[in-house]
Amino acid sequence: MLFERIESTGLAHYSYLIGDQHEALVIDPRRDAEIYVERASRAGYRITTILETHRNEDYLIGSTELAERTGANIWHADGELPYEYGAAVEDGQTWSVGRLKVKALHTPGHTPGSKSYLLHDPDGHPWMVFTGDALFAGDVGRVDLVDVDRKEEMAEMLYETLFETLLPLGDEVIVCPAHGAGSVCGSEIAERVWTTIGLERAHNPKLQHTEKADFVAHVAQVLERPPYFRKMEKLNLAGPPVIGPLPAPTPLTPAAFEAQMDEEDAMVLDTRSEVAFATAHVPGALSIWDGGLASFAGWFLPYDQPLLLVGETDDLTPVMRTLARLGYDNVAGYLAGGMLAWHMAGRESASIRTVTTRQLCHRLDAGYDAWVLDVRSDEELAAEGAIADGHHIHITQVPERLAERPDAIPQDRTIYIFCGSGLRSMIAASYLQRSEAWDGEDLVVVLGGTKAWRSTSCPLR
Amino acid sequence: MLFERIESTGLAHYSYLIGDQHEALVIDPRRDAEIYVERASRAGYRITTILETHRNEDYLIGSTELAERTGANIWHADGELPYEYGAAVEDGQTWSVGRLKVKALHTPGHTPGSKSYLLHDPDGHPWMVFTGDALFAGDVGRVDLVDVDRKEEMAEMLYETLFETLLPLGDEVIVCPAHGAGSVCGSEIAERVWTTIGLERAHNPKLQHTEKADFVAHVAQVLERPPYFRKMEKLNLAGPPVIGPLPAPTPLTPAAFEAQMDEEDAMVLDTRSEVAFATAHVPGALSIWDGGLASFAGWFLPYDQPLLLVGETDDLTPVMRTLARLGYDNVAGYLAGGMLAWHMAGRESASIRTVTTRQLCHRLDAGYDAWVLDVRSDEELAAEGAIADGHHIHITQVPERLAERPDAIPQDRTIYIFCGSGLRSMIAASYLQRSEAWDGEDLVVVLGGTKAWRSTSCPLR
Amino acid sequence: MLFERIESTGLAHYSYLIGDQHEALVIDPRRDAEIYVERASRAGYRITTILETHRNEDYLIGSTELAERTGANIWHADGELPYEYGAAVEDGQTWSVGRLKVKALHTPGHTPGSKSYLLHDPDGHPWMVFTGDALFAGDVGRVDLVDVDRKEEMAEMLYETLFETLLPLGDEVIVCPAHGAGSVCGSEIAERVWTTIGLERAHNPKLQHTEKADFVAHVAQVLERPPYFRKMEKLNLAGPPVIGPLPAPTPLTPAAFEAQMDEEDAMVLDTRSEVAFATAHVPGALSIWDGGLASFAGWFLPYDQPLLLVGETDDLTPVMRTLARLGYDNVAGYLAGGMLAWHMAGRESASIRTVTTRQLCHRLDAGYDAWVLDVRSDEELAAEGAIADGHHIHITQVPERLAERPDAIPQDRTIYIFCGSGLRSMIAASYLQRSEAWDGEDLVVVLGGTKAWRSTSCPLR
Amino acid sequence: MLFERIESTGLAHYSYLIGDQHEALVIDPRRDAEIYVERASRAGYRITTILETHRNEDYLIGSTELAERTGANIWHADGELPYEYGAAVEDGQTWSVGRLKVKALHTPGHTPGSKSYLLHDPDGHPWMVFTGDALFAGDVGRVDLVDVDRKEEMAEMLYETLFETLLPLGDEVIVCPAHGAGSVCGSEIAERVWTTIGLERAHNPKLQHTEKADFVAHVAQVLERPPYFRKMEKLNLAGPPVIGPLPAPTPLTPAAFEAQMDEEDAMVLDTRSEVAFATAHVPGALSIWDGGLASFAGWFLPYDQPLLLVGETDDLTPVMRTLARLGYDNVAGYLAGGMLAWHMAGRESASIRTVTTRQLCHRLDAGYDAWVLDVRSDEELAAEGAIADGHHIHITQVPERLAERPDAIPQDRTIYIFCGSGLRSMIAASYLQRSEAWDGEDLVVVLGGTKAWRSTSCPLR
Repeated sequence: MLFERIESTGLAHYSYLIGDQHEALVIDPRRDAEIYVERASRAGYRITTILETHRNEDYLIGSTELAERTGANIWHADGELPYEYGAAVEDGQTWSVGRLKVKALHTPGHTPGSKSYLLHDPDGHPWMVFTGDALFAGDVGRVDLVDVDRKEEMAEMLYETLFETLLPLGDEVIVCPAHGAGSVCGSEIAERVWTTIGLERAHNPKLQHTEKADFVAHVAQVLERPPYFRKMEKLNLAGPPVIGPLPAPTPLTPAAFEAQMDEEDAMVLDTRSEVAFATAHVPGALSIWDGGLASFAGWFLPYDQPLLLVGETDDLTPVMRTLARLGYDNVAGYLAGGMLAWHMAGRESASIRTVTTRQLCHRLDAGYDAWVLDVRSDEELAAEGAIADGHHIHITQVPERLAERPDAIPQDRTIYIFCGSGLRSMIAASYLQRSEAWDGEDLVVVLGGTKAWRSTSCPLR
Repeated sequence: MLFERIESTGLAHYSYLIGDQHEALVIDPRRDAEIYVERASRAGYRITTILETHRNEDYLIGSTELAERTGANIWHADGELPYEYGAAVEDGQTWSVGRLKVKALHTPGHTPGSKSYLLHDPDGHPWMVFTGDALFAGDVGRVDLVDVDRKEEMAEMLYETLFETLLPLGDEVIVCPAHGAGSVCGSEIAERVWTTIGLERAHNPKLQHTEKADFVAHVAQVLERPPYFRKMEKLNLAGPPVIGPLPAPTPLTPAAFEAQMDEEDAMVLDTRSEVAFATAHVPGALSIWDGGLASFAGWFLPYDQPLLLVGETDDLTPVMRTLARLGYDNVAGYLAGGMLAWHMAGRESASIRTVTTRQLCHRLDAGYDAWVLDVRSDEELAAEGAIADGHHIHITQVPERLAERPDAIPQDRTIYIFCGSGLRSMIAASYLQRSEAWDGEDLVVVLGGTKAWRSTSCPLR
Repeated sequence: MLFERIESTGLAHYSYLIGDQHEALVIDPRRDAEIYVERASRAGYRITTILETHRNEDYLIGSTELAERTGANIWHADGELPYEYGAAVEDGQTWSVGRLKVKALHTPGHTPGSKSYLLHDPDGHPWMVFTGDALFAGDVGRVDLVDVDRKEEMAEMLYETLFETLLPLGDEVIVCPAHGAGSVCGSEIAERVWTTIGLERAHNPKLQHTEKADFVAHVAQVLERPPYFRKMEKLNLAGPPVIGPLPAPTPLTPAAFEAQMDEEDAMVLDTRSEVAFATAHVPGALSIWDGGLASFAGWFLPYDQPLLLVGETDDLTPVMRTLARLGYDNVAGYLAGGMLAWHMAGRESASIRTVTTRQLCHRLDAGYDAWVLDVRSDEELAAEGAIADGHHIHITQVPERLAERPDAIPQDRTIYIFCGSGLRSMIAASYLQRSEAWDGEDLVVVLGGTKAWRSTSCPLR
Repeated sequence: MLFERIESTGLAHYSYLIGDQHEALVIDPRRDAEIYVERASRAGYRITTILETHRNEDYLIGSTELAERTGANIWHADGELPYEYGAAVEDGQTWSVGRLKVKALHTPGHTPGSKSYLLHDPDGHPWMVFTGDALFAGDVGRVDLVDVDRKEEMAEMLYETLFETLLPLGDEVIVCPAHGAGSVCGSEIAERVWTTIGLERAHNPKLQHTEKADFVAHVAQVLERPPYFRKMEKLNLAGPPVIGPLPAPTPLTPAAFEAQMDEEDAMVLDTRSEVAFATAHVPGALSIWDGGLASFAGWFLPYDQPLLLVGETDDLTPVMRTLARLGYDNVAGYLAGGMLAWHMAGRESASIRTVTTRQLCHRLDAGYDAWVLDVRSDEELAAEGAIADGHHIHITQVPERLAERPDAIPQDRTIYIFCGSGLRSMIAASYLQRSEAWDGEDLVVVLGGTKAWRSTSCPLR
C-alpha cells in the first residue's frame, strides 16, 4: 500500500498520493507534479486517477500537468462549472485502487460543488476523509470566495456539510484537508498536523457553534481576497498550461539584467531577507522574502510584466517553484552573482533604513516626530493589540489605499513601519519606495516588529 | 513543529521524531540512528530526549547510538529491569518540547513495565498516543514473551491497559504504534497505515473481546519466539554497542572469500532472489532473500560466526542496515562482483531444483512419488487451508525439528517444498542442503508456492 | 568555471558541460538531457550552445531535447548532411563562453564531416581537445560505418586528422573523446580514464603505425555494424523526438502483462542476471542482462514491436534510460512484482539449463556428447584462444546465421553455449529458445564461460 | 577502475580516490572523510591505503578519520617528522591497487620531505602524477613555510624537484595537485581545472625561470602565514582527533545564545552576506561570509574560545564542514531562526554603514573628509593599482597592526573601507567594531569595492 501526504510549503498545501496493488490516485495535485510520478514510479505504482476537491482559487491545480505525464483521468468537483478538460464527479461516485475504495461525498460550502472523498481501508471500513477546503484542523473553509453576497447561503451549506455529512462519519475517522497551518485559505488553521473528526468536533472553534444561525454568523465573514485568485480560477477552469519539468531561470549579468529592466519593463522581485534588502537592492525592486512569497506574490506581482529575480544565492529553485504554483510563468531571468555582482559592476543600489525597537524608543523619548504605519492584519491587531497612535493599513491593502488616496501615508514625515517581525514591513517599504504615487523618502522598517516592541520596556504611547 | 514517522522496512518498525521550537524527542529510535540527527538538524532541531516504550526484544534499540550523537537523555520503560544506562520512566511523568507536552502512561501487558506516551497538541489537547507494542492497527501486543507461564497474567494486564487506559483516551485520538504490517511482533497487524483509538475500538479483532476472560483466552497465545530475542533483550539492557555510521562491508575476491570461508569458519548468507539462488550459489550458502532478512535472520543466523554475504549487486547497504538492527555486527565481507565473479574465477557452485505448479501437476499425474513439505505458519494453514498429504513444519521450526529427529524429513525421497510464494521454501531448501544432519539430495522448491497452486486446476490430492 | 564530464554507463558515452561566467556549452549531449540543465542551473549557468562532433550512429543525440529545455543553439558537424534542425559548423569556427574560447577543427575519418573542438584556457592557451569518435584513449574511430567501400579513403582522412591535425596540437593537450572503455564504438578503448595527446602518441597502438599505408592497412577494418545504427543515423538527421523527463513504465499485473503479450504482440525483455533467468522466465522472453543492454539491445530488439520488461526489482529507471538513449520509446509496461508475482499468479515459466565448468568437465570425461557453441567475438578468440571443437558464431551474428541456415546449430544435440562469462550465452540461449526457426530443446549455458574454463584443469579437447 | 577527484570548496583542496579490482587508495584525504567511504563502498571498493604528499599546514588531514572507518594504512611524506601514527614513505616505494601501480617520488621544496606519487595506467605506463603542493596549475608550492630563513634552500630543492624530477616525467603526464584556484597555498593557481606536465612547462609563470638562481629569486618569497598553520602542523603530526560524522550544531534561542555569549565567553561568527550583516548583527559579532570562511577563519578565529554561529538559514552544514577541516571543533551552537528571531525576541543589534561608489563620489565631490582603508593584498595592489590617498593594510594584517599601534587607523575620522568587492571590508569593519583596541565609530564599507570604483567616472583623487 502507498499513502503519502505531499506537503508544499509556502502555500501550506497538502496533496495525497494513495495506492494499492500498483495503482494509485492523487488528490489535488500541485502543478510541479514530478514528485507524484517519481514517488509512484519508484514504488511500482501507476497513477490512474486524479481527484479534485473543488475548483481551486489559491494555486494552479496540477491535474493537466500530471495527466500529461501519466495519462490519468481527471475528475472535477464543482462539475457544474464550464471545465475545458476532465470529467465531473457525481455525489456517491466511487473509484478503486487495488483493494482500496474511495467514495465522493457532496460537501458544498466553500464552493457550491465541493466534494470530499471518503477512503475505506482494505477491509472496507471508512478510514480517512479528504475534505479539501471544507474542514481543516482548527478551522473551516471560507464561504465568501465564490460570491460575497451569497456568503450566508454558502455558510448554511457548509453547516450542513459539516454537521450532517462530515461529523457523522465518526470521531475515529482521520481528516485529511487540503491545507495546513500557514495557508491563505484559513487563517486559523491549527498546527495539529494530523487530525480526526473527533479532534475537530471537540477542539475546532468553528464547530463549537452547533446552532446553524450561530455558525452562519461566525463563519459568514468577508475575508481578504488576493487579486490573483481570479486568475487561478480562470486557469483552473481552462486547464493550466503544461510546463513540464520546473524551468530554470536565466542567469543575467548586471548589464543584461539592467537591459531587461529597461527594455522589457520587467519588475524586479528580491527574495532576500529584510536586512539584506535594507542595505542594498536594485533600485525599484520589490521585497518579498522567500518564505513569504506564496502568501504575498498574489497581492503584489502583476501577471502582465516579466519578472526579474534577485536572490540570496544563484539557486532559485524554491522561488521558481512557488512562482510556477501561482502561474507566474514569465520570469525573464535572475541577477547572477546577486547584489555582490551588481555592486562590483559599479551599479547603483538603493537602501531602506531600519531601526531596532530600543533605538526607536530612544528617538521617541528624545521627541522625534514619528508616524507609525502598522501593516498587520485585523486579526493580529485583535489578538495582539493595536499600537497607540499607530495607523493601520493591512499590508495587502497598501496598494489599494495608496491608489485611492495618495496622502493616506504622509510624505513629509518619517514613517516607521511595523508588522509582526519586520518582514512584511519591508514589503510595504519597498512598495512605497518604488511607487510613483508616493514621493516621500523617509521610510524606516522596525526590526522585530511588534514582537520585539512588546518585549521592551518602552511601549509606544 | 516537527512530526515525522520513521519507517524501517523489514522489521516494519515505526519510530517517531517530534519537535517544537527547536527541541525534539525521539520515541523508540532504531540503531542506524543517523536519520534522526539529519532530519532534526536540517530542520533546526536539537534532540534532547529519547523515550522507549518497552525493553525491546525484536531489534536493538538505538538509544545509546542516538545519545552518543546528540547528548540526549534516555528514558526507559520497564524501568524495574537492571538497565546499565539511562533512567527509568515513572507513570505520569511528563516531558516538554517547545509547546508540546508528552505524558507517560503505564500500559503493561506486552511487558510488565511497558509505557505509552500521550502527546498533547500545542493547545494542550490529547492528540496522539504512542503505544509501543501494546496496541497496533488491527492487533495487540503479544503477552507470552516475558514469561510464557505468566501469559494469562500479562494478558489480564493488557486487558486493563487497553480497556481502562488506552480506549478511554477517546475515539478521536491518533494511535502511533511501534510496528506496522509485516512485523514479527504482531502477525495480524492491519495495513491501516494510520489509525485512531476509534478505528481500533471498532475494527481491531482483539478488541471485540470486551469481556476480560474472553479477551485473555484469545490473547494469551504462545507464539513463536525467534532465538535472537534473548540476545536483543540482553543487549538492550546493557546498552547496544555504539557503531557510528553504518559500516561498509569489505569486498572480497572469490579467492579471498573462499579463504574466509575456510579459515574463519564463516557462514555464507545469500540475499538474492530464490530463482537466482536456485541456479547457482556458493556451496554451503544459506538463502534468505533481502526482503525477508529482518524476519528470518534471527532464526537462522548465528551470532558467534562471521557472516560472508552474497548479493544481487555490490551495494549491500540495505542488508548491512538490517543486520545492524539485529546486532549482527560481525560481517567478514561480501563476494565482490557476485556469483558472476565466482563463476568466472572457476569456482564451483551448487544449485537447487525448482518446479512450477503446472510441472508438478504433470509429475503428480504421471505418478511421481512426492513428499510435500509445507513450511507455512499455522496461521497461514488455518487461513488458506492445508495441503492434503502435505507435511507441515513451519519454516522457523525446521532447524529444531531436524535436530530432534534427523528423519523428520525423509532423505530417500524427492522433497517438494511449499510456502506461500517460494521464498521461504528456498530458505528451507538451502538450510537442508547445507545441514550436516541432512543427507538427502533431492530438494525441489515449488515456485509461486501455495498461491500458485490455488490458481491451477490440479489441486494436490 | 564549470567543467564536467558526464559519463553515461552502458554506452560508455562521454559528454561535456563547459562554462564560464554564467554561460555554458555542451558537447554531444545525451538524450536524457535533464542532467545538463540541472547541473548548469544549480551552478548558475545558462546553456547557450550545443556542439556535435559528428552525426552519431550509436545513440540518439540529445541536442533537440536540450535545446527544447534551454533554447540553446545546435551546431552540427557533418554539416553537409541534410539535417532538419540546427546549423552546420564550419572549419575554424569559434564560440565563446565567458573567457573560454572553443574552435572547430575539421577532423574527418570516422565520418566525412567530423569535427573536433579545441578548448582554450582562460589565458587563451590550447588546453583540451574534444575529439568525438576520431581519437579515443588507446584506439581511433572506425572508418567503415559511413560506407564500407570507402573505408580506405576514410582511413586516409583519419590518418591526416590524427597525424596532421590532432597530434600537432602538442603532447600536453588533454584529449576528451566521446567514449570510454566499453563502448561499441571502439573495441580497444583503454581504461585510461583521462588522457593526453602525448599519452596517445606514445601508447595508442593505432598511432604506432606512423606510415600512412601501414596505418590504413591496420585501421580500414570492417567491424560489426549493429542494425539499429541506421535508425540512429536517420533520427539524428531528422531530430530525435523530444520526450521530456524520462518516462516511467507502466506496472502490469501478470494478467495485464499476459494480455499485452497476446494483444499487442509485444516482445518480453528480461534484464535480470543470467542465473535468475535460467531458473524461470516468462516463456518467450529474451534475456539481456541490464549491464549489457546498451551493447546488445540494438542487435536483438525490434523497433516496431512494443516492449514488455521484466526486471530484478520494480525500479526500472536504468533500463528505461538505456532504452531511451537508443530510441526504444515504445515500452508497453513491466511485470510489477517480477517473476515472483508471475509465479504466485500461477503463470507458467520457462527455464534454461546451466552447468559449471567442473560439471561440464565431468560430463565430457564421462563421454557425453556435446556440441559447443562459442559466441565470443573474433577479437576475443584471437586474444584468448579458441575452444578446440567449438563452433564459433559471434553473439551478434546468431540471428542472421540462423536465418540463413536453420541447421547452423544442430537441433538434435545438447548445445553447450560459451562466452566470456555466461551473460552473452544466456542472450543466445534465450534467442534460440524463443525463435521459431529453432526447434531444439537442449540448451545449456556454461556459467563463468571461457574465463572459468581456463581456470580449471580440464581443458576442452 | 575508479578515479575520482574530490574537490573541497573553500580550501580549494583536491583529494583523489583511485581504485581497481575492488581495492582503493586515497591521496591526501580531507577530515570530513565520509565521502571516500561512501563512494568507494557504493562502487564495490575497499580503501586499503592512504597516501599523504606532505605534512599539511593549511587543513587537518583526514587520514586518522579515514583509517578509523576503513582500517586503511596511513603513509606519511615528511617521514622524518615525529609522527605519532602511520608509517613513513620511502623514495621509490610502490603500492598497488588492482592492476594500478603507484610509485613515490621524493619531491622536496614545499617541505623537506614532500613526496609526489606517480600513477601508472593498467598497462604500466606513467599516467598521472599527484604533486601535492609541489606543482599546481599555474603556480608552484611556497617555500617559506617550514622555516622562513631556509626559504632559498627550499627553493633550490623545489627547483630540482620541478626541473629534475617532475618535468622529465614527460609533457603528456597528467598533473594532479592538492589544490586548485582559490587556495591559500598558492595565490596564483590558474583556473586550468585539469592540467599536464606540458601545459605547466609551457604556461606556468614560475617554470619560465629555468635558471636555478633566477627561479630561486622569484620563488623564495615570504608570503603570509595564517596563525592557524601552527595548529594544523601540530595536530597533523599527532593525528587529528577522530570526530566521526560531521557534528550538527546546537540550535539556541536568543536567550540561550545570549547566555552562552556571557557565560562561555564565546565568540560570535556571522557568516551571512556583507549587506545583511551591515543592517543588523549580534553586537560583537565577527563577519566572515560563508564563502570566505576557509580563507579567513584561520586569521581571525581563536581556538581557545567556543564559537557561536549566526547564518542565513538554520542549515549550517557547510559552515560546520569548513570549521571541522580547520580544527575548530568547539562550536557552542547557533542562533536558531537567525537575526529575525533575535529581533523578534527584542534583542538589540548593531549595524555598520555602507556606501556605494557613486554615493562616495558625491561625498568626496562635496568635500567630505574621508580616510580610506584599503585591505587588499599586496598582489592585488600590484595588479590592479593602489588607491591614491588610500592607506593600505592587508585584511590579514589588521589585527596585528592594530595591536602594534592603536592609532594605525584614526579613530576620529570616517573610515571608508575598500577591498575588491566589499566582503573583506566587512571582516575588517566588524573586527574593528568589536575590538577593544579600537574606539572609533564611523566605519563605512564601500559596496563593490575597487571593482566598482574602477567602473565609475569618479576616481579617488
